[in-house]
Amino acid sequence: MSEYTNPFGMDVVPPPPDRSTTRSLKPFFCPRSVAVIGASRNNTHIGYRLLKSLQGSRFTGTIIPVNPQATEIAGLSAFPSLRAIPGPVDLALIAVPPNAVLAVIDDCAAKHIPAAILITAGFAETGGSGTSLEQELREKVRQHGIRLIGPNCFGLMNLDPAVRLNATYTPAIPPAGRVAIASESGGLGLAVVTAARRLNLGLSSFVSVGNHIDVSVIDLLEYWEQDESTDVILLYLETIVDPRRFRQIAERVGKKKPIIALKAGRTSAGQSAAGSHTAALATNDTAVDALFTQCGVIRANGLDDFLALATGLSSQSMPQGRRIGILTNSGGPGVLCADSCAAEGLTVPGLSNLTQSALASFLPPAAALNNPVDVIGFATEDQHARAVETMLTADTLDALIIVHVSVRAEDNPPVAAGIVRGIRAARRTSGTQKPVYLCWMAEGDLDRTFTVDEETIPTYPHPEIPARIINRAITYAAWRRQPIGPVPRYPDADLENAKAICAKALSSRGPGWLTTQETRALLSAMKLPLAQGGLATTAEDAVRTAREIGFPVAVKLASHTILHKTEIGGVRLNLTGEQAVRDAFESIKARLAQDNTLDVMEGVLVQPMISGGVEVMVGMTRDPLFGPLLAFGLGGIHVEILGDVQFRIAPLTDRDAAQMVREIKGHRLLQGYRGKPAVDIGAIAEVLLRLSRLVEEIPEIIELDLNPIFALPEGQGCRIVDARIRVAR
Amino acid sequence: MSEYTNPFGMDVVPPPPDRSTTRSLKPFFCPRSVAVIGASRNNTHIGYRLLKSLQGSRFTGTIIPVNPQATEIAGLSAFPSLRAIPGPVDLALIAVPPNAVLAVIDDCAAKHIPAAILITAGFAETGGSGTSLEQELREKVRQHGIRLIGPNCFGLMNLDPAVRLNATYTPAIPPAGRVAIASESGGLGLAVVTAARRLNLGLSSFVSVGNHIDVSVIDLLEYWEQDESTDVILLYLETIVDPRRFRQIAERVGKKKPIIALKAGRTSAGQSAAGSHTAALATNDTAVDALFTQCGVIRANGLDDFLALATGLSSQSMPQGRRIGILTNSGGPGVLCADSCAAEGLTVPGLSNLTQSALASFLPPAAALNNPVDVIGFATEDQHARAVETMLTADTLDALIIVHVSVRAEDNPPVAAGIVRGIRAARRTSGTQKPVYLCWMAEGDLDRTFTVDEETIPTYPHPEIPARIINRAITYAAWRRQPIGPVPRYPDADLENAKAICAKALSSRGPGWLTTQETRALLSAMKLPLAQGGLATTAEDAVRTAREIGFPVAVKLASHTILHKTEIGGVRLNLTGEQAVRDAFESIKARLAQDNTLDVMEGVLVQPMISGGVEVMVGMTRDPLFGPLLAFGLGGIHVEILGDVQFRIAPLTDRDAAQMVREIKGHRLLQGYRGKPAVDIGAIAEVLLRLSRLVEEIPEIIELDLNPIFALPEGQGCRIVDARIRVAR
Repeated sequence: MSEYTNPFGMDVVPPPPDRSTTRSLKPFFCPRSVAVIGASRNNTHIGYRLLKSLQGSRFTGTIIPVNPQATEIAGLSAFPSLRAIPGPVDLALIAVPPNAVLAVIDDCAAKHIPAAILITAGFAETGGSGTSLEQELREKVRQHGIRLIGPNCFGLMNLDPAVRLNATYTPAIPPAGRVAIASESGGLGLAVVTAARRLNLGLSSFVSVGNHIDVSVIDLLEYWEQDESTDVILLYLETIVDPRRFRQIAERVGKKKPIIALKAGRTSAGQSAAGSHTAALATNDTAVDALFTQCGVIRANGLDDFLALATGLSSQSMPQGRRIGILTNSGGPGVLCADSCAAEGLTVPGLSNLTQSALASFLPPAAALNNPVDVIGFATEDQHARAVETMLTADTLDALIIVHVSVRAEDNPPVAAGIVRGIRAARRTSGTQKPVYLCWMAEGDLDRTFTVDEETIPTYPHPEIPARIINRAITYAAWRRQPIGPVPRYPDADLENAKAICAKALSSRGPGWLTTQETRALLSAMKLPLAQGGLATTAEDAVRTAREIGFPVAVKLASHTILHKTEIGGVRLNLTGEQAVRDAFESIKARLAQDNTLDVMEGVLVQPMISGGVEVMVGMTRDPLFGPLLAFGLGGIHVEILGDVQFRIAPLTDRDAAQMVREIKGHRLLQGYRGKPAVDIGAIAEVLLRLSRLVEEIPEIIELDLNPIFALPEGQGCRIVDARIRVAR
Repeated sequence: MSEYTNPFGMDVVPPPPDRSTTRSLKPFFCPRSVAVIGASRNNTHIGYRLLKSLQGSRFTGTIIPVNPQATEIAGLSAFPSLRAIPGPVDLALIAVPPNAVLAVIDDCAAKHIPAAILITAGFAETGGSGTSLEQELREKVRQHGIRLIGPNCFGLMNLDPAVRLNATYTPAIPPAGRVAIASESGGLGLAVVTAARRLNLGLSSFVSVGNHIDVSVIDLLEYWEQDESTDVILLYLETIVDPRRFRQIAERVGKKKPIIALKAGRTSAGQSAAGSHTAALATNDTAVDALFTQCGVIRANGLDDFLALATGLSSQSMPQGRRIGILTNSGGPGVLCADSCAAEGLTVPGLSNLTQSALASFLPPAAALNNPVDVIGFATEDQHARAVETMLTADTLDALIIVHVSVRAEDNPPVAAGIVRGIRAARRTSGTQKPVYLCWMAEGDLDRTFTVDEETIPTYPHPEIPARIINRAITYAAWRRQPIGPVPRYPDADLENAKAICAKALSSRGPGWLTTQETRALLSAMKLPLAQGGLATTAEDAVRTAREIGFPVAVKLASHTILHKTEIGGVRLNLTGEQAVRDAFESIKARLAQDNTLDVMEGVLVQPMISGGVEVMVGMTRDPLFGPLLAFGLGGIHVEILGDVQFRIAPLTDRDAAQMVREIKGHRLLQGYRGKPAVDIGAIAEVLLRLSRLVEEIPEIIELDLNPIFALPEGQGCRIVDARIRVAR
């Protein structure tokens, strides 16, 4: 537990693993008996295919076809209904027409079947009556306390040799291994499962969740967290129904097992396609990126990347550093590989004299002995074996990429054997667990897989791929090493007061912007660092305030209804004397009077002119699904034109806040640029954290901008100069 | 010719095609007879393999083995030497040990052989004596007037059915087609040639240029420009030996045929790997990007992208717009495809009611009829055919992507047939040439190729690839439609004067920065828009200048040795009166006197305070290989921290300059941001063009910075506020 202890009593602390979820999902993965409702002799029916799949995988439990018109199907005794089955049934696999589904669920309940997979389509994904049918189904399942996967799904596989369950309608069974996959698209899941065979990607289990009205991807994460057969988890997602729960569970699970996610609907075109496909909410991709960053999920950039990450992370240990060795038999592809390493922030360091002379002792004279090592086109099996062993055991390298281009088809088996021999020798003699990745460009032999004892060597068709995988593995490993950060609670913040201010504004004026006075009071209640000064309602008031804070000052119109104050002359800067302040007040007032809008004037804000420091901005918007999304950037064109802004979802941990500040491109400006001092980064992070607390506690705050904030030199904190806050019920 | 006419007499105008290059390369591609020097009966020798390749491709000319120890090899009459061959020889294919090469070249000359391919390695790529041997070889080849490909190369193929020449040592012959490939790496070339078979990528010819001591990639561009069998040109480059000639030729050829380049050595790791591999100069990747942008070369991001571009651009016409139709049998992959379209700036528009009802008439009720169209997993051959035809002929779409995931292996042939049938029907009935791309995810059938009559349909394994190809095709087509821009000469610029200023500075002080006076005189000679004001050497001088230009003014130390003037108090801004100017002069002078550095003071620069407008910067550095590289950006942190800067190689065309200004990320700031007026973009472009002219004419200028330049509102030009120029011999 200590890793997750939070001195501040954070509410983002991952909950303890939910044993009841794990227990309730067990019958899906390890049923002793499976009833196939809708089993059929007609080979165009899904029910026929499901039966064939179960038989084809040599399921170790009992298969019971259910069909009112048959007593025997595919050599198995069939029953007219679930209720007619004599013994117990652990799992119902349902492929009946949509209008027959509800009755089957009732039968499941009557038969005390704890789990059902509903393959049948025709529910919410089709809209109209399908949506209401899905609602009825959902209620029935909940009533009966049955766990249900689907509807509109492709099924489930458990590749455990003790189970061998293929409850899907594809006969293509991937190799058994340690990767679990959940997919919100049947077709995508199918593509991955079938590709796994070719890639020798060993799976523990696969679940197509369909419309996921009961069992969700999050439930599966919890199951696989406990599953001793699973080391790596792959998710294909089109929606994230409960981002907060996703974050809690994924963060906890990710600390033990890498989670690789391919999230579709990145863009509006994709979102609307995903929407029509799964009848689910379009989600905000910025928020998805923030969420994944916060909980350590490795995001795949497309299907090819998804598969490459899966093969790369499931069979090799995490690289301990960024120093990469490249071994090739061809210069050009070696160069492309070196380029990709540099592009991913990896280094391709020179080799020690020792390593180079070791290589020289057995490689041909024309070989290049420095990194990348080029053994030359026709190097033999033995030369490959020795070169691989030498590089894999070199102290100065953290990982090895082998790039091979075959000159003749008949060359490949010896070279492949040499590579395997070299890796095995290195593993056995020095015990090194350093990761190895292969780029195998040998036409006619492209689908060759490489296995060293129990270890699969990830094998890719292009020399640029391994570096991309290695970089992500290192980033994930770094995330995993850090404890989950705390969410500070700031007991000094007066949240009751802040709530009261919002409530009063809402009840007196309804939804809209807070007044200048309310905004300042609210930020003060949160102990946020407002710039000195204050609201003045008369010219003399303004002069008094100016005198208190010292000249020069700025005088700005205070009004919650006029947002663009500069344009109507409402901002007067660098006022150096009392008369100037008086004049400024009067002329702002006169201008409003002239426009017949004097009633919107709440007064003027008198503030010191702040010099030095760097202008930054902090903002918050509320995503309908993801909740409060906090933004940090340098403000102005940096955010609006250059898009140099970092987002995270509240609640922020201290690590989230520090990372937001660190990861804007303009970060160097905060570190002290051209001789200027570094700014108080801790103070900016604290603003983010206090705001996170505020917007978590007060859902009525729907929009907030602190812009600009002057970040002053280290130790001097920061000053919020302008702020606006919008509330709604 | 009219397309290339240039009213300013530009020197970047592509030269006319060089018929003599084309003629001199003809014997490589269309020899009537090929002598193989080093032909061997020993099947481990390259000479054996070369002979086998020539025979295996059923070369239509005569093959003549040359070997002092044989009278017959592989069923062909062998000769002891080239001189012993009775008839003429068009091409010598040489695979003898390095120390025998020079004698063979002499024999070639004696025999009047116009062309030789030298496979032998052991030249400059190995360093040491290999380098001097290569030098001797180069001189000999030049003396004899023989055209030579290599050394250290993999050979050449001409797939023309009338020739069928495979002069390489791989027996793998790709299909004949219309793509020509030149590679600076044998291994990479081999990987591409062998992949071409799998991808059904038809090649016209392939050349491995090796160390390219005579025939270069540029020569080959000129050859393929004239070659009626070639439509698309692929280059794998590790070096660009003569960037200026490359630009001229590539720009001319690119207007007729797309050039796709994979340039290795993008990064320093890759550069040093490429350096050790080809013994060539490391090149600056920023300059390479600029060069390719300027001459329309399509740059591939890695080997996978290279092949995908080749298949995509060689067989489909250019899309006429960005509206993409997606047809799939599976939601998830369809969503990923739609995401990738949006990411590439393509749209996936909704379909018309007409198209939707046409689709509804034959698709299953559960099909999704809007774009992406989902025909559902088990759709039939006929449904596929009709859906493809309907979408390919829809008025509202510019291109079609078909994404297929196979549920069962036995499904694929009918679906594949349906897709082909649909495309053929659309082509025949409506005559549409709209491009079609396929994503075929059917394990066990992944290497299926699709051919419709003579047309190959580009087929990819992942749904994200087609959009990337389409976007590049559209960008290239847009470049190709524009005429090559002129390089303005600015006859009003006094280049003689500018030259004289540099020469005088060099002769009097040697290499270094120009003085303020020299800098201003030089920029004035070029008619570049200096800010008003001038150098003043006394306080009264400064006051007089200030009075002339009007207050407020800035007073800045003028010194070519002190570069950071602010730090020693050398910059005084916003001076509003004469006394302030006088004080500024005296205090700057006093400060230097105090530092004992009064001798570096050239005076002060008195300038008006410019308000309004946007600060930008223009710079120039000289790359040892690429020559003057001009830079444009918003200055300050935008260039230094955010890297928002555009580079182009001089000479700039007017299009280059306009594009530089347009393509910085901060461009919106120049267009008028938050109610500010748009700035005078034409004036900025003119600064770039005049500078380009300057640095082209005066190679002694090795570094130059105009920073800041105030870009004023449209019609008001811009003002160079600070400038520095460094000269060297």
